[in-house]
Amino acid sequence: MITVSTIAELRAARQCLPDPVGLVPTMGFLHEGHLSLVRAARDECAGVVVSIFVNPTQFGPKEDLSIYPHDLPRDLRLLEAEGVDLVWIPTVEVMYPPGYQTWVDVMDVTKPLEGAMRPGHFRGVATVVAKLFNAVQPQKAYFGQKDAQQAVVIQRMVQDMNFPLEVVVCPIRRDADGLALSSRNVYLNPAERQAATVLSRSLLAVQTAYQSGERNASALRKIIAAMIEAEPLAHLQYVSCAAPDTLQEIEGVITGRALLSMAVYVGATRLIDNLVLGE
Amino acid sequence: MITVSTIAELRAARQCLPDPVGLVPTMGFLHEGHLSLVRAARDECAGVVVSIFVNPTQFGPKEDLSIYPHDLPRDLRLLEAEGVDLVWIPTVEVMYPPGYQTWVDVMDVTKPLEGAMRPGHFRGVATVVAKLFNAVQPQKAYFGQKDAQQAVVIQRMVQDMNFPLEVVVCPIRRDADGLALSSRNVYLNPAERQAATVLSRSLLAVQTAYQSGERNASALRKIIAAMIEAEPLAHLQYVSCAAPDTLQEIEGVITGRALLSMAVYVGATRLIDNLVLGE
Repeated sequence: MITVSTIAELRAARQCLPDPVGLVPTMGFLHEGHLSLVRAARDECAGVVVSIFVNPTQFGPKEDLSIYPHDLPRDLRLLEAEGVDLVWIPTVEVMYPPGYQTWVDVMDVTKPLEGAMRPGHFRGVATVVAKLFNAVQPQKAYFGQKDAQQAVVIQRMVQDMNFPLEVVVCPIRRDADGLALSSRNVYLNPAERQAATVLSRSLLAVQTAYQSGERNASALRKIIAAMIEAEPLAHLQYVSCAAPDTLQEIEGVITGRALLSMAVYVGATRLIDNLVLGE
Repeated sequence: MITVSTIAELRAARQCLPDPVGLVPTMGFLHEGHLSLVRAARDECAGVVVSIFVNPTQFGPKEDLSIYPHDLPRDLRLLEAEGVDLVWIPTVEVMYPPGYQTWVDVMDVTKPLEGAMRPGHFRGVATVVAKLFNAVQPQKAYFGQKDAQQAVVIQRMVQDMNFPLEVVVCPIRRDADGLALSSRNVYLNPAERQAATVLSRSLLAVQTAYQSGERNASALRKIIAAMIEAEPLAHLQYVSCAAPDTLQEIEGVITGRALLSMAVYVGATRLIDNLVLGE
């Protein structure tokens, strides 16, 4: 496994990889969710590249950039064990050198949900992912369904910008008690960790209601809202029942697929989770 | 020479071209300026791709999109004669299908000059060029110095976004009387065509003054302004003496290189021209 930092080093190492190349973009502090993406890439591609970069431009001024968890030695051990070929760990100066001034904006699908709560977040995400794509030139790129809106934004960007690659979205990985894996779960104290299961439990309740025939979007949102608000340590930021491709909120009855998603503060930690109905 | 329209056709035809591939993006109605780009690409590259697309997103609502000149049969004859391998002529629907919503914004260098006069112009340019780059995947891309700010914007975008290609900027081509070649010159009536030589004559006057030792940016701008305003059919929109890379206006004395540029209405036709001093 080769580890590189600069663009020139990356391009030289990338040249030597057999096509097709799969790229797994990460912010490090890897968990089984990331590793499931790496395994998918390893299964489907001749070369596997993982990027580790805590992208400052996707964090708001009051967000957790300065305390975002990291453990690079552990990350590299895990990636080596998965048979990754190339790990790219750019510095902020490599990605955003002095005079940097170019941004990619995806419009409609970035407006609701996470985009409404985190202004500028998806501009930072789209920009850094476009840069990763251009630098690595993968044939496939792997993202987690955990960040459902991010997956929609990236797919939209790839289609709109004619990037010559396929976006692969892999299922959410969960702990045994249902909590969706996230690098930010480390922020939770034991009581919060227990309370945090309310996110996945509320999605299970929605799934059960759906399977029993409930098709009213508002009723499904209310199931989640009621369960979250009943948990003393949790505070609901938003709950959504939206079209999975456009992310437009569904009013009335669900006819096709629907993306149920939420953002919840558990203590000071902001968690997200989601479920697609009608798959 | 192969002519294609859709992305799928383009990708298939591009696959068959030998690397390195040179791309010459155009809006058609080709003149010797375009053909000089094609010849540079033909000299330096194994495969040559020319795109012809009148990009609506780089035109303002009151600009000349609906009357922009075109003569596709003539363009194809000229390109065939230059030994072009592949001509891509996408429709608006191919480039901007329903639901399209992704834009590339280059910031600082798009603010002055053409960017100040044509809001949104460089967003349209950067976006369509990024799409052309991703679709064609050239190793080199050719632009004319005639659109000096466009060349700076594209170079900045390529560097910032890590596009894996080299931007080649070719010199301005002029008619015998000095008028810079432009597809828009066809809008000029005979009297305007004669008056339009004032742009290049004013740049020659600046060059003469510079060679005589004049280094005051304001004095050089005034030479142009005075000559343009002395021409009854011409009206100066802006004149600039700026740093060629940042496009920041120079106040006081020129120390390094300087880009003298202007936009001038001759009758109803808007013309631009420029000169780099200190090369």
